[in-house]
Amino acid sequence: MYTPKGQKTREHFIRVSADLFNKKGYAGTAVSDILDTAGYSKGALYRTFTDKDELSKEAFKYNLHVMRSKLKEAVVREKKTIDKVLAIPRYYKNIDTNNFISGGCPILNTAIEADDTSPYLNKLASDAFKEWASLIAETIEQGKKQGEIDAKVNAARLSLFIIATIEGSIALLKTIGDTRIMKDNMAFLEETIMNQL
Amino acid sequence: MYTPKGQKTREHFIRVSADLFNKKGYAGTAVSDILDTAGYSKGALYRTFTDKDELSKEAFKYNLHVMRSKLKEAVVREKKTIDKVLAIPRYYKNIDTNNFISGGCPILNTAIEADDTSPYLNKLASDAFKEWASLIAETIEQGKKQGEIDAKVNAARLSLFIIATIEGSIALLKTIGDTRIMKDNMAFLEETIMNQL
Repeated sequence: MYTPKGQKTREHFIRVSADLFNKKGYAGTAVSDILDTAGYSKGALYRTFTDKDELSKEAFKYNLHVMRSKLKEAVVREKKTIDKVLAIPRYYKNIDTNNFISGGCPILNTAIEADDTSPYLNKLASDAFKEWASLIAETIEQGKKQGEIDAKVNAARLSLFIIATIEGSIALLKTIGDTRIMKDNMAFLEETIMNQL
Repeated sequence: MYTPKGQKTREHFIRVSADLFNKKGYAGTAVSDILDTAGYSKGALYRTFTDKDELSKEAFKYNLHVMRSKLKEAVVREKKTIDKVLAIPRYYKNIDTNNFISGGCPILNTAIEADDTSPYLNKLASDAFKEWASLIAETIEQGKKQGEIDAKVNAARLSLFIIATIEGSIALLKTIGDTRIMKDNMAFLEETIMNQL
């Protein structure tokens, strides 16, 4: 579809706008902000993307990929299924403005902005939450099969509770700016998971 | 400060923009949206408010007041401190688009939009989270004094965990649109609180 140069321009626009959208929001980021930061012309933008909607979709996917890669790295290191589940709060326990994706969780940011305004962005966020919950639930189910995790655990329910607690904690961390909150909440979540599994 | 008519105009602008800001965000709501919905002229707006920032501050306070009143109603009904704490997840368990403030939790919405963009809105959200946590913590401390709640409970830590889980659950509820998630997560939070207190 794209020449090597066109592909490079496309990736540059996606990276630049992924950062801007995650910090300032989709409505809060003007096309002129993107052009200024990218250092490209309006013509280059509209030769590469149909509209701001296409760009925001690609930027969301990019942010999601970055975030997932970091979390996946922490999870795949673990052998036992119970440790794979516990790796999630343990990963978030240590996030701060330096090692976490800039602007906070892209699913949460997109979810909050899009829920009453943008059906297509809302669907991206909704699907991302559901896929994440499925991944956690699958790990729990695998642990149940292998006899590592109590067969009575409701995997789907626990997965959504884990995600809710993480997302709410990110909101508190980012707003109040105290990393202690994340550490305490994730320690609490670890305890809750261990009590359940 | 205001004539009765001026006061009425002010309150009308606050109510209208409180609803718009909570649904579409501060950056996502143009002054023209506010004027169209309010049915007043630009002149009337700027005779009443210095700028959009002043209006957004007042709108946030208004939304916060509406939300707090609903929650307070559920809490003050209870006599025992432990039931006052449990009244919080029990209240949120039953929220849906009909009985909860339109657009979702104004603290969460403001927090997510403002964290990287607006220091004054971020401070309003941060203070609101902290005040809410203090209120819950005070109830727990009172329960400890009265011997209703285990003296070993860390009230400050539990309060922030409660708020994080609620806010994350609202984000999931609003994004995925399934009230089951809220019911399940709040049942989970109730269990966690009961295990702790």
